[in-house]
Amino acid sequence: MEKKTNKKQTKNSISELRQDPVSGDWVVIATGRAKRPEDFAKQKRTQVEEDSEKKCFFCYPEETGQKKDVLIYKNSQGEWTLRVFPNKYPAFSRPKNNRIQHKEEGPYFKMDSIGYHELIITRDHKKQLAELDVLEVAEVIDAYQDRYINLMNKKSVNYIDIFQNHGKEAGASVAHPHSQLVAIPVISPYVKRELEGAEKYYRMNKQCVYCAIIEWEKEHRQRIVFENDKYLVFCPFASRVAFETWIIPKEHHPYFERISAQEKVQLAEALKTALKKISEALNNPAYNFYIRTSPADGQDYPHFHWHIEILPKMSEWAGFELSTEIEISTIQPEVATKFLRNQKK
Amino acid sequence: MEKKTNKKQTKNSISELRQDPVSGDWVVIATGRAKRPEDFAKQKRTQVEEDSEKKCFFCYPEETGQKKDVLIYKNSQGEWTLRVFPNKYPAFSRPKNNRIQHKEEGPYFKMDSIGYHELIITRDHKKQLAELDVLEVAEVIDAYQDRYINLMNKKSVNYIDIFQNHGKEAGASVAHPHSQLVAIPVISPYVKRELEGAEKYYRMNKQCVYCAIIEWEKEHRQRIVFENDKYLVFCPFASRVAFETWIIPKEHHPYFERISAQEKVQLAEALKTALKKISEALNNPAYNFYIRTSPADGQDYPHFHWHIEILPKMSEWAGFELSTEIEISTIQPEVATKFLRNQKK
Repeated sequence: MEKKTNKKQTKNSISELRQDPVSGDWVVIATGRAKRPEDFAKQKRTQVEEDSEKKCFFCYPEETGQKKDVLIYKNSQGEWTLRVFPNKYPAFSRPKNNRIQHKEEGPYFKMDSIGYHELIITRDHKKQLAELDVLEVAEVIDAYQDRYINLMNKKSVNYIDIFQNHGKEAGASVAHPHSQLVAIPVISPYVKRELEGAEKYYRMNKQCVYCAIIEWEKEHRQRIVFENDKYLVFCPFASRVAFETWIIPKEHHPYFERISAQEKVQLAEALKTALKKISEALNNPAYNFYIRTSPADGQDYPHFHWHIEILPKMSEWAGFELSTEIEISTIQPEVATKFLRNQKK
Repeated sequence: MEKKTNKKQTKNSISELRQDPVSGDWVVIATGRAKRPEDFAKQKRTQVEEDSEKKCFFCYPEETGQKKDVLIYKNSQGEWTLRVFPNKYPAFSRPKNNRIQHKEEGPYFKMDSIGYHELIITRDHKKQLAELDVLEVAEVIDAYQDRYINLMNKKSVNYIDIFQNHGKEAGASVAHPHSQLVAIPVISPYVKRELEGAEKYYRMNKQCVYCAIIEWEKEHRQRIVFENDKYLVFCPFASRVAFETWIIPKEHHPYFERISAQEKVQLAEALKTALKKISEALNNPAYNFYIRTSPADGQDYPHFHWHIEILPKMSEWAGFELSTEIEISTIQPEVATKFLRNQKK
């Protein structure tokens, strides 16, 4: 997502958020990453993985002209261990002032694609999260929380998405391990649907749906991969992809950004363990994970329950999935669980 | 989607449709295509394209043990030109009786993954739709309509999805050109959202939203790639992927299955032209297309407007898209349109 693009095309224009007039879905027309039409034929797959450590943007952010750090952690020797800087080619650009341009054109609606797009870099070029120490993973979670808190009250920010793409097939364009934070002005219909689903379940059952899931899973133990005091790692009942794995706080907890220092270490252990088992089981597959948490729009979401969703990249969406958003998984989550459970942690 | 799978695992079990307890989304746990957990690590990407014409399942359906045709078209010499047969490894299996098993388990809900899954095969192993004559493409549309009408009144069928995957990156597992028809018992939340969006727009504006779009596009002519008397080919305002292209009847028309013989020829011309231009512009890219039409659930959908959506496979969904379903496109639809317009038809 950080690839070099054609500068001529992009100088003066701001990316747009366009809304589908039927579904209400949003898309970003990212002029900051715009390519000329001819470039699509030459290079169908846009992701290029770098192999040489020498030229790595993230090993040498100063030398390769990255933007200035917004956060840096150092060890006792004064060497940096983690840094966060704005994406050079953001899908969402920093607001110049507090006004977001909206425009209605006939049946259409669009607005400036304003927001924040940051990269969270750990130092080691080769070691992915699964291979770091628990305390090193906890430092990454620290950075997620720190940046979240820093951006959540900005006027143009209503949702903050924190995610990691690992491997070319999962959309990582730079090999050096990194996470991304995207703070955006809209709450997508997909996220809204989950918030409304949780709300509706609560109204009907007087219980959080995720708490009900945790209770069921702990009682039946068919889909639990790992657990510690604070977190449950499990394959969800309606797994969308083979080996989908979630990490969820056992206690009800709507807001990721409020986790305590102690919870962070436990979360780091759970995340590292989940990723390690997936890596062992599937021979270091590409994957995406993201944090699903309550919006940052100033509203309360007492019935939501934050968690992390890990999606190994095991197949492509084809026509059926694209047209219906019904995904087809070729392994029962219960079988996947057993296989993951038996891997080294 | 037709790949060979491990038979031992699958003999007795029926695939399941499982519903996400929060979002209401459905997934298929396709035991008919089940693999052992060990098999995922060996072969991460499951699509294998066949290159030898000799072994092709679709050139020699009898010899390769395909199921019996449900439809066959022949030319004046008595040779088959198109055939339709059930998928050997269906994601949705034919109902044995009229009862679909439902099961509630704690917070979860699942049901048998019952339905019909058919393959529509044109004879030539190499020629994709873009390369066929208009009348040959019309024959394919004939077959879509024929099978649609045949299945739409079945008790277990509420939605019929017709689509084509072209190229390995778009999920085609067999190189021989083919389309698929999947008739399923559920209407997915994604489809429902579009139906509701169209309904809502109508209530507010006393006009079909798609008719409003057509009117706007015909007036402004920034996104029209091609048109004939009956159909408009255009790049949608909120294109989710680069070079997304739609084909829509100019007159209001909720139901694909009711198109006339004359409309079919015009639709064939529009579809062939769109695919040809995409192929020329992007050097034969992988793509998916599907027909979006009103459900087959016996209800009326007077405010929906059927159409075809073509999605060239230009990028991967990564963490941001997976978590928000907000897609990032790197070309303005207006620029893509101009480029497509200038290609040979």
